[in-house]
Amino acid sequence: MNKRYLMAPGPVAVAPEVLAKMSEPIIHHRSPQFSAILTKVREDLKYLYQTKNDCLILASSGTGGMEASVVNLLSPGDKALVIRGGKFGERWDELCHTYGVKAVNIDVTWGKAVDPQEVKKVLDANPDARAVFVQAHETSTGVKHPVEELGKLIREKPATVLVVDAISALGVYELKTDDWGLDVVITGSQKSLSLPPGLAFVSVSEKAWKLVEKAQLPKYYFNFLKEKKAIEKQTTAFTPAVSLIIGLAEVLRGIRATGLPALFAHHRRLSEGTKAGVTGMGLEFFSTVPSEAITVIKAPEGIDGQNVVKILRDEYGITIAGGQAQAKGKIFRISHMGYLNEWDMIVALAAVERALNQLGYPIELGKGVAAAEAYFAQNK
Amino acid sequence: MNKRYLMAPGPVAVAPEVLAKMSEPIIHHRSPQFSAILTKVREDLKYLYQTKNDCLILASSGTGGMEASVVNLLSPGDKALVIRGGKFGERWDELCHTYGVKAVNIDVTWGKAVDPQEVKKVLDANPDARAVFVQAHETSTGVKHPVEELGKLIREKPATVLVVDAISALGVYELKTDDWGLDVVITGSQKSLSLPPGLAFVSVSEKAWKLVEKAQLPKYYFNFLKEKKAIEKQTTAFTPAVSLIIGLAEVLRGIRATGLPALFAHHRRLSEGTKAGVTGMGLEFFSTVPSEAITVIKAPEGIDGQNVVKILRDEYGITIAGGQAQAKGKIFRISHMGYLNEWDMIVALAAVERALNQLGYPIELGKGVAAAEAYFAQNK
Repeated sequence: MNKRYLMAPGPVAVAPEVLAKMSEPIIHHRSPQFSAILTKVREDLKYLYQTKNDCLILASSGTGGMEASVVNLLSPGDKALVIRGGKFGERWDELCHTYGVKAVNIDVTWGKAVDPQEVKKVLDANPDARAVFVQAHETSTGVKHPVEELGKLIREKPATVLVVDAISALGVYELKTDDWGLDVVITGSQKSLSLPPGLAFVSVSEKAWKLVEKAQLPKYYFNFLKEKKAIEKQTTAFTPAVSLIIGLAEVLRGIRATGLPALFAHHRRLSEGTKAGVTGMGLEFFSTVPSEAITVIKAPEGIDGQNVVKILRDEYGITIAGGQAQAKGKIFRISHMGYLNEWDMIVALAAVERALNQLGYPIELGKGVAAAEAYFAQNK
Repeated sequence: MNKRYLMAPGPVAVAPEVLAKMSEPIIHHRSPQFSAILTKVREDLKYLYQTKNDCLILASSGTGGMEASVVNLLSPGDKALVIRGGKFGERWDELCHTYGVKAVNIDVTWGKAVDPQEVKKVLDANPDARAVFVQAHETSTGVKHPVEELGKLIREKPATVLVVDAISALGVYELKTDDWGLDVVITGSQKSLSLPPGLAFVSVSEKAWKLVEKAQLPKYYFNFLKEKKAIEKQTTAFTPAVSLIIGLAEVLRGIRATGLPALFAHHRRLSEGTKAGVTGMGLEFFSTVPSEAITVIKAPEGIDGQNVVKILRDEYGITIAGGQAQAKGKIFRISHMGYLNEWDMIVALAAVERALNQLGYPIELGKGVAAAEAYFAQNK
């Protein structure tokens, strides 16, 4: 019985009932039937985003949503601030570089969050910055950046917008798009929405639409104004990924029924229980501002984190994630996103204990699991 | 019983066994299991493309593949020839315009194919053209452009590549990527591959790779060099649309088992049978170079083609396509791509007969169907 567990931060496990929904016969994308689904999905996305603004739907991975935000907001030679504290922060810088946008990088040590006062200082020194690019949650390090505070700062700057990569944050924990002044918020289908990869979503504030109207960077497939016009006609600018949107409708229906508070509480519980287990094992966290999306564990002295990941995957059929770039080998990451519950977290912790033992690192079997069990029993 | 038929040229009907395959649990995209699938898919794509070169896989609609080809081949100010004889020919011109590429348009009346001699003339007058952009099959008109002849012409020009949008052509009828000198060939998942939308594919010849290495247009998500490097590592540059690629593996396995000749014969048979039925009804074709992908029927005098489409969709549950832009109302289109067989074509023809009668256009019921039945009986 080759039963497998997917507990990496994207792609994530998808619920069987959603997979079944996506396997219904394909419908045409220019039909009243599909328009009705799109309209409902767009309303439900506003609920998820906590915004009154339109959320655009793109057929691409999350990176497509990031690139779309750069090319639809900026013009050649524009200046932008980039919070760079992980692999995805670096991606903002690379995107700016690609399109001739002058990136002023605020470098943050991997594992730490940006200091809003530092951003304020750099922002004051660069009043001509058109945008600040940040991750709500940096998936490569497990760090939550203080986007609520950044929103307050940037709201005061009439010529600057805040662009938030929330690919592994939206739907995981509280993120108030409108109330916090998050002008552009990007997410993807393969994280908290528990869908396969292939869809990106972007919300755009009124302040950001003003930039969009003036933006001169070249774009065709990722075109916010075209998508906006398409929304008025209850369609999409280009052929949408029909089956994924059918799955999305099912997932969003569930989220509305459950409510955001329950959704956030679910992730918080999985995260806290897992973190209790990690502490119980005597291991340490990589992130100084841990998130509810993933638990990022430092590989103990003398252990290559990649070997932990490999044993879980190849011997136990359990997929977690290792570290990327400069964090490779130093960490391993357990996701709380996707179709997962507390028993999955118990499985992940038990597997980590066993793998570390196998690698010669002495951990009393069951110790981390016991701590997690105690947490879950006490926090229902 | 709300049984529905999808006979539009994309999205198309997907086989239940492929839908079932895509509804299996999601696997991680950076895993040996997925790498093995990718490697197999890439080999099978070469068979489909009849090429020895790599075929890139992008998570986007077909338009993303077209844009990717423009930005990865050209530099600002480059000149390109565009064959513009339909909505998708116009898209090439729009893409060039977007990126500051000087498009020399060869305008072709909708419904007709480009004359290779005309292309030769314009090509000789513009020896600095870096690329010729064309549709193998223009989905908006049902016309096949003579790409084999264009390949012969352009092969003689060392500094020019032939870029073929084969989104509704590859896998439908014979298209020899390497033998015909088609430098860049684009297709999508939602046409002859009978998959949901969300994947684009691009093959790149050695001649085209030389252009890619020099191309200066900005790109990030659609980056051929990054995808090429990713192929060497048996992965993709960005998160792939996992479930669609699982479906693709299943479809390509079937295509290799059937063989391209049988696949082409299948489309030809559906096309010829349908066309026999249309002629039997006394109706006319819009395309002077009809394709095996779709049958494009002129709306008879006094009949709005959109009304035919509406009656089929709203009253009979059958989705065919109307005309786009300047052809709107003048035509309607029946697809031969997707999970369709001869009985589906009989259904489409019967439905058209009935709808035309309902709209007051006198057609003897069963006349077109009889002609199609005779064709199918004689051509097994």
